[in-house]
Amino acid sequence: MSRLDSFIRRLTAQRACLDRAAEIIRDLDGPVLELGLGNGRTYDHLRSILPDREIFVFERKVAAHPDCIPDDAHLISGDLAETLPRAAERIPAPAALAHADIGSGDAEATARNAARVAAALPVLLAPGAVVAADQPLDDPRLRPIDLPEGVAPGRYHLYLRVEVPE
Amino acid sequence: MSRLDSFIRRLTAQRACLDRAAEIIRDLDGPVLELGLGNGRTYDHLRSILPDREIFVFERKVAAHPDCIPDDAHLISGDLAETLPRAAERIPAPAALAHADIGSGDAEATARNAARVAAALPVLLAPGAVVAADQPLDDPRLRPIDLPEGVAPGRYHLYLRVEVPE
Ligand SMILES: C[S@@+](CC[C@H](N)C(=O)[O-])C[C@H]1O[C@@H](n2cnc3c(N)ncnc32)[C@H](O)[C@@H]1O
Ligand code: NI
Ligand code: NI
Repeated sequence: MSRLDSFIRRLTAQRACLDRAAEIIRDLDGPVLELGLGNGRTYDHLRSILPDREIFVFERKVAAHPDCIPDDAHLISGDLAETLPRAAERIPAPAALAHADIGSGDAEATARNAARVAAALPVLLAPGAVVAADQPLDDPRLRPIDLPEGVAPGRYHLYLRVEVPE
Repeated sequence: MSRLDSFIRRLTAQRACLDRAAEIIRDLDGPVLELGLGNGRTYDHLRSILPDREIFVFERKVAAHPDCIPDDAHLISGDLAETLPRAAERIPAPAALAHADIGSGDAEATARNAARVAAALPVLLAPGAVVAADQPLDDPRLRPIDLPEGVAPGRYHLYLRVEVPE
């Protein structure tokens, strides 16, 4: 399996998970959260499969294709460590879908990001919301759900936002 | 069609063309030329499908994953405008396969690259060699050949090195 093979497999898994998430939340109101804009490919995919949803994008350093940058009202600039805990001020309603593509070559920073997202994302989500993520997110409010066919366990991640008794 | 969709489609077409090229040259001796290392994904793919071939890589500015950088003897550093015309000094035999992934966001630079490759690559190739390219290469010594199934015309390019009467 070459790096080209595994890259194609990863992108295909990512797309399948986004498509599945969009299907599941069809009847659930709420905006979409994109954590990590990158070059804007998944942002563009989300707006193409969910044309009627507001999408809020979290990014530290915007470097996307010019066509794939949200307007200022939908761009939450800064480090997730700062922006996620205060994001409820910016987002008008509990979100129906969140996508977190937050990994990088730096394993420590990636793990820190994942821990932060697992801790601070759930309060921004409506019950029944779906989270797609490149990293495993470990929190009792996020219950792992089945991956689309063809996506091997661990290659991408899907969670349902559930209520947990205190 | 989102940018994620078209990116996956492009990578899939690229891989199909490399696999097809490798098949066609199975019985033709000669090294492989990779024009443009980038992050090294297609270099890694070429060495995985053609493990017994020498691969020479042309690159101006190496920025690939450390695992995907050739040794000094197989790295031809510098601008294609300088290195291609003198490459015969470095390459021990006519090449059996060349891959040119030379496009960038800059349309003018891309067209210049393609023109240079079309002019200077054919002399480095054995008759019957195959060229896979992200750009159309316009030269009588490069005859377009059928693309693999599922690859729409223009999405990627395949050529056979042919002899032309003077
Ligand atoms: C892998 S890329 C996302 C790629 C994107 N999904 C796409 O398809 O183009 C990750 C992005 O997350 C951003 N990022 C990573 N850690 C961050 C953090 N702690 N705070 C804010 N942004 C972060 C990076 O700047 C980068 O743009
Ligand atoms: Ni554009
Ligand atoms: Ni490595």
